[in-house]
Amino acid sequence: MNYKLMLRMMGRTLLVEALLLLLPLLVAFIYREDPRPFLYTLLPLALVGFACSRVKTKAEFFSREGFVVVALIWVILSLFGALPFWFCGYFESFTDCFFEVVSGFTTSGATILSDIERLPRGILFWRSFTSWVGGMGVLLFTLAFLPKVGGRAQVLVRAETPGPVATKLVPKTVQSAKILYEIYFALTVLEIMAFSAAGMPLYDAVVTTFASVCTGGFCITSASFAAYNTTCQVIAIVFMILGSVNFAVFFLLLTGRGKQALKSDELHFFLGAVGVCSLLVFVNILPLYDSVGVAFKDAVFQVASIISTSGFCTTDYNLWPPFAQTVLVILMFVGGCSGSTSCSIKCGRILLAFRTSTRTLLRFSHPRAVKVVKLDGKAVEEETLNTVFAFFILFFLLLGAGSLVVSLDGYSLTTSFTASLGCLSNVGPGLDGVGPVGNFSGLSHLSKWFLSALMLVGRLELFPILLLLHPTTWSRA
Amino acid sequence: MNYKLMLRMMGRTLLVEALLLLLPLLVAFIYREDPRPFLYTLLPLALVGFACSRVKTKAEFFSREGFVVVALIWVILSLFGALPFWFCGYFESFTDCFFEVVSGFTTSGATILSDIERLPRGILFWRSFTSWVGGMGVLLFTLAFLPKVGGRAQVLVRAETPGPVATKLVPKTVQSAKILYEIYFALTVLEIMAFSAAGMPLYDAVVTTFASVCTGGFCITSASFAAYNTTCQVIAIVFMILGSVNFAVFFLLLTGRGKQALKSDELHFFLGAVGVCSLLVFVNILPLYDSVGVAFKDAVFQVASIISTSGFCTTDYNLWPPFAQTVLVILMFVGGCSGSTSCSIKCGRILLAFRTSTRTLLRFSHPRAVKVVKLDGKAVEEETLNTVFAFFILFFLLLGAGSLVVSLDGYSLTTSFTASLGCLSNVGPGLDGVGPVGNFSGLSHLSKWFLSALMLVGRLELFPILLLLHPTTWSRA
Repeated sequence: MNYKLMLRMMGRTLLVEALLLLLPLLVAFIYREDPRPFLYTLLPLALVGFACSRVKTKAEFFSREGFVVVALIWVILSLFGALPFWFCGYFESFTDCFFEVVSGFTTSGATILSDIERLPRGILFWRSFTSWVGGMGVLLFTLAFLPKVGGRAQVLVRAETPGPVATKLVPKTVQSAKILYEIYFALTVLEIMAFSAAGMPLYDAVVTTFASVCTGGFCITSASFAAYNTTCQVIAIVFMILGSVNFAVFFLLLTGRGKQALKSDELHFFLGAVGVCSLLVFVNILPLYDSVGVAFKDAVFQVASIISTSGFCTTDYNLWPPFAQTVLVILMFVGGCSGSTSCSIKCGRILLAFRTSTRTLLRFSHPRAVKVVKLDGKAVEEETLNTVFAFFILFFLLLGAGSLVVSLDGYSLTTSFTASLGCLSNVGPGLDGVGPVGNFSGLSHLSKWFLSALMLVGRLELFPILLLLHPTTWSRA
Repeated sequence: MNYKLMLRMMGRTLLVEALLLLLPLLVAFIYREDPRPFLYTLLPLALVGFACSRVKTKAEFFSREGFVVVALIWVILSLFGALPFWFCGYFESFTDCFFEVVSGFTTSGATILSDIERLPRGILFWRSFTSWVGGMGVLLFTLAFLPKVGGRAQVLVRAETPGPVATKLVPKTVQSAKILYEIYFALTVLEIMAFSAAGMPLYDAVVTTFASVCTGGFCITSASFAAYNTTCQVIAIVFMILGSVNFAVFFLLLTGRGKQALKSDELHFFLGAVGVCSLLVFVNILPLYDSVGVAFKDAVFQVASIISTSGFCTTDYNLWPPFAQTVLVILMFVGGCSGSTSCSIKCGRILLAFRTSTRTLLRFSHPRAVKVVKLDGKAVEEETLNTVFAFFILFFLLLGAGSLVVSLDGYSLTTSFTASLGCLSNVGPGLDGVGPVGNFSGLSHLSKWFLSALMLVGRLELFPILLLLHPTTWSRA
């Protein structure tokens, strides 16, 4: 392990976090709020960041260090990121602060706040801004703007977004990171403009966009999206879906390769899932509504919100029939496309798992048939399929462990299961006690720490954090 | 496809079923009950069976036919097996009869009967006897007692019990089938004797043993095992655990290879799971009990009952704390050892999945390490690991589909999820509406047919029934 290089990487990322904190500080000044929560955080952050970033070392970076440093950076970034919440005095414990900021960075949108409106605007800005930064990847951000990492940048990107479908847009990793962030910026600006045009106040438009384009789910009203008009809700649907599409599709579209872009199996699967599930939910909830239009809008909004792992809501779907709720729970497992800001298992892995299983099934009846699993017409390596397998198994193991831990708090099985699933999949809210009108504040400290860990594990697609915890990672071999 | 041979195989198995029906007929005569339900069934069964078994063909049998014929036999056996229930007049619809007999043959133990005691003894005998026959495999039974199948017997056995750990005791398949049934007989006789010695009436002892040694779960009292004394409950624990152990272990023990028998990784995992989970449940439910001993007994009984996929109960665990319930739900996924009468995913697959995932995880940190996955010290083929992968994916897909279908009936999420899981895993009962004091009678016809299908799919370990339904199986290729 090259501990020195790891320290330097961490230092640089902490400095980036310090820079990011200047924005909410500015917001606090604009609204004449207490700037101290940010100032108190900036001081240690800048000091530690500066000290670590000065470490001199040779620029060698291997896969193992890549995973470990990415996992560590996300943990340490969250520990420092929780400080403004801690200093502002509106949170009951550091556990709550950590949970909330991890929920931000991981774009989960699970909250322990029950009375959101009473928080200062600067703090709420920081809360949503963490989602925006986390959505595209903290390290990708660092690479895009402070490119001189030294070592092999792609190792880091691969560790931060290790989906089964590679998203290398151009040969150079740093260049790819820049293009991705340009698309992300463009989407952000477009959504802010759309919200503003639809009548949302500018502050709301900016902060809500931060939490929505990244498929996060934080809202600055306790009523979530029910507080905004239908046009705003429709805009949110569009951008949640855009945020769930592989950003490579936008890149191909922008560079005149539309045909290639729209050929993606994963994209078809994702859009198909949105369509079919919206229809199923719509038909199921229709009897509860007076207006067909509102029922349709609520159905599509909720499906888009869950499959994109955002977790916004326009209505309390705890009151929907069990069938619609079951559809939503299944969608929590699905997630968007690889290379997007969404999380959970993701459509690409589900497609590969499905095709691999069908291949195995058919080998029983046609034992001599040698078949490869294909995606977008190209053969997928067996090693990739093994990784998908491992992902599924570890996902379900962690989900079970999370359910067990939360069930100790005495909530219903649905609450503990969907709390665990909501955090691991980064959707955020679940059903019952942690449903759209509930929040995570009533859980024990143990549950909150465990769920925070699950959010981090889920956001980094399992392997980095698990490697961080595995003893052999730290052995000399 | 060799349709003629398939017909002949089916005919022979139907004749075996006709022979088996003579036993409940005898019971009906002994207790001077109406014998007509059995006589009415025997007539068409014997006719169809005889006609089919006379089909002449050359004895060629391939993998594909093996799977298809096994799947078809289980379906047709169940259709005929439901007839005595239908003729006895105590069931509301043929759907209910089919559900109940499938639950028997598949050793699920899910029931649609709410007032079991009012049924004739002959009918209850048939109900439990189907479990006993299904526990060891209907085709294995046919092979053991009518060995001249023609064709390759191992193809059929492999299709009926396709676990990842081979259970070939001696080179000849027919001989292996005989040995397995001898062990099964011995366990059955021992359990009947034990129950009788503990004060259970002979009829109860026989019928309860039939449903218990096969890890089935049918009881002839609505109170399940709470109707019997503590000694009987302890005996049931012992035999449920014995029924979940790979029968090869008994064979090795009996042939003086005890050391080899007890070295099995799967056995250690299974016993470890029983121990740890019993302890967890015990500590969690202790505050509800006055007596430490009773709490311990109930904890061990319930853990053994669920992990063995029996589904008996001594108390209403719907009233236990959420943590204990979560442990039980997780155990529903586990099941016993391969080569046993238990069902669900089974410990062998779980171990292999866990080891494969760990290997993949560690490859990220040590990319150049080439490692094979081992079981009992021997390398496992990649093809077997692929099959385990497919099993997991298909299991979860079917579980989701089942939950969706049952949720249409409007029950709670916990009810529809555990109903689907209970049937697919062949545990039987679940939680909430289909918990220990509930039953499946309130579900819609659609749900009952779908859950019957899930029980069959689960008992045959997914692949045969899925192949039966897959269009390419019927193509000429």
